[in-house]
Amino acid sequence: MNIKKEIMEFSPIGVINTPHKESTKTPIQPVFAKGITGTVEIYPEYSEGLTDLEKFSHVFLIYYFNQSSKTMLKVKPYLQDELHGVFATRAPHRPNKIGISVVKLRRIEGNILYVEDVDILDGTPLLDIKPYIARFDSRSDVYSGWQDEILDDTANVRGKRDYKE
Amino acid sequence: MNIKKEIMEFSPIGVINTPHKESTKTPIQPVFAKGITGTVEIYPEYSEGLTDLEKFSHVFLIYYFNQSSKTMLKVKPYLQDELHGVFATRAPHRPNKIGISVVKLRRIEGNILYVEDVDILDGTPLLDIKPYIARFDSRSDVYSGWQDEILDDTANVRGKRDYKE
Repeated sequence: MNIKKEIMEFSPIGVINTPHKESTKTPIQPVFAKGITGTVEIYPEYSEGLTDLEKFSHVFLIYYFNQSSKTMLKVKPYLQDELHGVFATRAPHRPNKIGISVVKLRRIEGNILYVEDVDILDGTPLLDIKPYIARFDSRSDVYSGWQDEILDDTANVRGKRDYKE
Repeated sequence: MNIKKEIMEFSPIGVINTPHKESTKTPIQPVFAKGITGTVEIYPEYSEGLTDLEKFSHVFLIYYFNQSSKTMLKVKPYLQDELHGVFATRAPHRPNKIGISVVKLRRIEGNILYVEDVDILDGTPLLDIKPYIARFDSRSDVYSGWQDEILDDTANVRGKRDYKE
């Protein structure tokens, strides 16, 4: 088998509903979307998989950048006017259009998750949810390449894009 | 369009090579695989996308659980003998078989990444790489549901599974 030719098929498990209707006005990360709330609707056939999730404070939403119609190997990220390899950025125009965001989980009612700090475009198809587990996912001693060149204030202004609170 | 029926097709951008040849002896998370090294081969047509990545200390590897042939909505995770919803765990038998691991990036030579703290089965198809950015991804004030019931010592023993150092 030539693994390079392998095709994996995924199908959404739900949909993400947010106040962000235009990609150019959507904050680029949850840290720039503080307090913005949204809901995640899980299709009923998967709702049993949510059992015990509500006891986690944060979750990874893994979703499909369905508004991205192209692939670029070098991109200028929103935070800096310089070209970087796409794998050194979180930009959407990737070979496989997978996005991940760490959001706060406020509560679950039936098959609806109420989430906060949402940087995701309204109507985005959801592929997976994973619990954020401090023991696994929170790292210290991190350095972050070109991202470390950007001051917090600059990141905060540019990262929010045109979103008005 | 019925979004529920939408199919997204992904294709690997590379392959992950590790010393873990058997799923039952593979550590379940990078924190239980400290010091274990592996390589990630990016297919040459995507290698331009790696530009500037080597200046990041940690990366998310996003991959396909190609050894998982079933979907379970409730699973017993390796760390605890109790059933939980699959979305409250990191178990592989998920509706969309996407795995994520935060690994240390040691260096890049051409299209090969040298990584450390690898909990991934040898030969796993790679879907995406994203830089781990402390500003976006490292969270405090986290609580982690059933995971918080597990003592570090217990997690360390069970999380390594049968891997022998």
